[in-house]
Amino acid sequence: MRHFLSTADWTRNELQGLLDRASAFKSGTVSRSLEGKSVALVFFNPSLRTRTSFDIGTQRLGGHAIVLDAKGATWPMEFGEGAVMDGDKEEHVREAARVLSSYVDLIAIRCFPEFKDWQSEREDPLIEAFAKHATVPVINMETIVHPCQELAHMLALQERMGPIADKTYLLTWVPHPKPLNTAVANSSLLIASKFGANVRILVPDEAYRLDERYMSAAERFTAEGGGSVSLMTDVEAAYDGADVVYAKSWGALPFYGNWGDEAPLRAKGADFMITPEKMALTNNATVSHCLPMRRNVKIADAVVDSPAFMGIEEAANRLPVQMAVMEALAGQAGGAE
Amino acid sequence: MRHFLSTADWTRNELQGLLDRASAFKSGTVSRSLEGKSVALVFFNPSLRTRTSFDIGTQRLGGHAIVLDAKGATWPMEFGEGAVMDGDKEEHVREAARVLSSYVDLIAIRCFPEFKDWQSEREDPLIEAFAKHATVPVINMETIVHPCQELAHMLALQERMGPIADKTYLLTWVPHPKPLNTAVANSSLLIASKFGANVRILVPDEAYRLDERYMSAAERFTAEGGGSVSLMTDVEAAYDGADVVYAKSWGALPFYGNWGDEAPLRAKGADFMITPEKMALTNNATVSHCLPMRRNVKIADAVVDSPAFMGIEEAANRLPVQMAVMEALAGQAGGAE
Amino acid sequence: MRHFLSTADWTRNELQGLLDRASAFKSGTVSRSLEGKSVALVFFNPSLRTRTSFDIGTQRLGGHAIVLDAKGATWPMEFGEGAVMDGDKEEHVREAARVLSSYVDLIAIRCFPEFKDWQSEREDPLIEAFAKHATVPVINMETIVHPCQELAHMLALQERMGPIADKTYLLTWVPHPKPLNTAVANSSLLIASKFGANVRILVPDEAYRLDERYMSAAERFTAEGGGSVSLMTDVEAAYDGADVVYAKSWGALPFYGNWGDEAPLRAKGADFMITPEKMALTNNATVSHCLPMRRNVKIADAVVDSPAFMGIEEAANRLPVQMAVMEALAGQAGGAE
Repeated sequence: MRHFLSTADWTRNELQGLLDRASAFKSGTVSRSLEGKSVALVFFNPSLRTRTSFDIGTQRLGGHAIVLDAKGATWPMEFGEGAVMDGDKEEHVREAARVLSSYVDLIAIRCFPEFKDWQSEREDPLIEAFAKHATVPVINMETIVHPCQELAHMLALQERMGPIADKTYLLTWVPHPKPLNTAVANSSLLIASKFGANVRILVPDEAYRLDERYMSAAERFTAEGGGSVSLMTDVEAAYDGADVVYAKSWGALPFYGNWGDEAPLRAKGADFMITPEKMALTNNATVSHCLPMRRNVKIADAVVDSPAFMGIEEAANRLPVQMAVMEALAGQAGGAE
Repeated sequence: MRHFLSTADWTRNELQGLLDRASAFKSGTVSRSLEGKSVALVFFNPSLRTRTSFDIGTQRLGGHAIVLDAKGATWPMEFGEGAVMDGDKEEHVREAARVLSSYVDLIAIRCFPEFKDWQSEREDPLIEAFAKHATVPVINMETIVHPCQELAHMLALQERMGPIADKTYLLTWVPHPKPLNTAVANSSLLIASKFGANVRILVPDEAYRLDERYMSAAERFTAEGGGSVSLMTDVEAAYDGADVVYAKSWGALPFYGNWGDEAPLRAKGADFMITPEKMALTNNATVSHCLPMRRNVKIADAVVDSPAFMGIEEAANRLPVQMAVMEALAGQAGGAE
Repeated sequence: MRHFLSTADWTRNELQGLLDRASAFKSGTVSRSLEGKSVALVFFNPSLRTRTSFDIGTQRLGGHAIVLDAKGATWPMEFGEGAVMDGDKEEHVREAARVLSSYVDLIAIRCFPEFKDWQSEREDPLIEAFAKHATVPVINMETIVHPCQELAHMLALQERMGPIADKTYLLTWVPHPKPLNTAVANSSLLIASKFGANVRILVPDEAYRLDERYMSAAERFTAEGGGSVSLMTDVEAAYDGADVVYAKSWGALPFYGNWGDEAPLRAKGADFMITPEKMALTNNATVSHCLPMRRNVKIADAVVDSPAFMGIEEAANRLPVQMAVMEALAGQAGGAE
């Protein structure tokens, strides 16, 4: 049985198939592939677009979504094997995953990292435990990657410019008051390299290099399918001739959970906000950001409110791409294994 | 494209049309006017009746409602134009409104004032920003007015006594442990004057006068359509011969956000609870209150539990009037403009 | 009009009828008995299984469920008759129950005790007030008993071993870091005695005796329908020859709301976790626990992960038994009285 935990587990052709199906949904294709089926949407973190688009997408496919707020409205969860549960965790994923599997046909999970220990959190332990113990397919609604966002982003790019193979794709770190999860940055790198772009990662300092799991995956994808990956700290060189600019802020992994010491490095990126001046260096680039987005901190209003900004289309695409993912997973021969 | 932000934007005839449609729903008329459509219910504040009645109303019209708890379950929102978003606000209404518009066909919003600065809050900035940036109709589920409650109230009154034109309608301030939002008081004034009643506003002190926006609107409505508006502080005179008594507590606007200094004025209304003795002065009046309602603080049990009390009927009417509003907005020619 | 507040109000035959209907649903029987109807699920406490299974069950019967988080998302509720509501309670159950009844066809409520005063909380005042004032049937989703869990438990037992009359049924207190609600313990006692088992209640000290309301009800049930009830403190004697072992932790009622003084008694049960060694004393017993369950505190992994463990089947049965309950209540002649 197949899950949708990371696009890294799916081939470019498979992913393109999902994108093509999403396009068909946008063109009016109707599917009732979740008729009589249910989907549990389990949120350990806030959501606006994800909750709304998964719920409506399920409904459009004939199914029924249940939203579970895992912080507050349900029980704190343990995922460690053999854990002696005498702390604050009331329920083990082994039970939660099996019981939810008995009620629903798909389980979608949002669980951001906790900023405590990257060595364990980089293994994405909660969603991996769900996928191990569930007897129905599991969908990642953002953990340390955000694969549904990747598909929505790639679909919007293809709608704007066709295939992105050999295009120059700039993933730029941008300022933010707080250190953030690397999920969307990891995802930007994965999907752009998977589809053969020349990826530039612009950071204030090499300490902002993404986790080796994603860096090496991207190098493997481009080695196999075309494109390239490079880490840059020179702003002008990075923007020069870019076809796509994707903005994201994240915390430097060497300071993970110990963010006070990261402040001086963070200060080196104080001028990294995307401005019309920087955009002028590009090849009339399309610019985007996963929402929510802090205006005039990450991207200046003049860029957000220009035709170059693709963020709204990208967010709107969440609905059809997730319909394609749910349909593909629910349609697996044999259902629960 | 038309929104439903305040009844002040709709004519008496238009509002009567909504009430008549609501009556038809109560008599068994079936409409599938939201078939295949979705409604986002965005709550920045708690709700029992509003959430339940909007969800069920959407369902009865063939549509699907998504409930979004905007405090906690989703992102804090900025609405200021040009804001540098380096504080605690993660998302701008400009994005949220456009993205939600791409997923759903109607957006309904509850957002109470924050009791900080009436000069800005009286402009109802969050829902106005949603209405400006959304590409689908926006419905007010209570901000500084509560227009859905107004319709439910007026429908219940018409069911009890027919047209209220020239009836004596008493809006009385009542005690409450805390200073409250003026929304329902503003709304009571707007709808009673719109339908031609002789409106008496009974307050412990003239400092409880409602905002000039609503006072002058009510004077305009009665000048055009009959009826009158007067502010009173004499309890016996206010109850004398009243046909309707509507109870609400609110904070005096001159002390907005600085409530400590309001206490002495508030004490002047300590005996304003609605009691059988006061009701005996009326013309066998119908009495009501928007729910929730504190018993034996605002209205004595003996009045609430008498046949004069209309609050349950009024609350029950939320369902059909909101169905009428959603149907009217969803049916606009051209949909999103 | 009949509610589903406690299995104590239903005969063994009636309960068996609900279980048989649940089995039919598991075998593929389709019912649209909630077509066009709505159910309000009112949660004063967290939930995973209850929320999901009630929502999906409603959907499968053709109806529509509304989830109301009564802590935070809605208003604090008063239930006392004649209360002067000048504290933190904003809404009286008299209004909430009647208004909800005007919107929906069934009201289901979860409201755990507050650990303040057992003399008042043992009367289950909030759900009793809802049942008194609602004009539609009320379902207990766990208060000081958990009747839906009882049905799911009994159905799973019958699926494993047929009728439990004259079987030896051990309800064992197990360790937990905190004193807990007696609801599931009360329910275990009620349902096992109702169906004629020989019930042993194993506790670290006689202070853990359950409330007399449940002890005496169980004695009455077994006097009428066979079986027996005994309170035991000898672990080996209690496990000896048991056919069923059901685990639950609870606080000793004499220390209710004053838990610090309970600690020495609690320590006497430090070794009460269910282990393979204890299970070896039984008659190859089936073991279960209402979820969530703390592994390696209440039950050792080696037992949970053995074929003897019935907890997942029991949790899965929540869906069909609740469908049976909702169908039975919604189908009452005359509907609201």
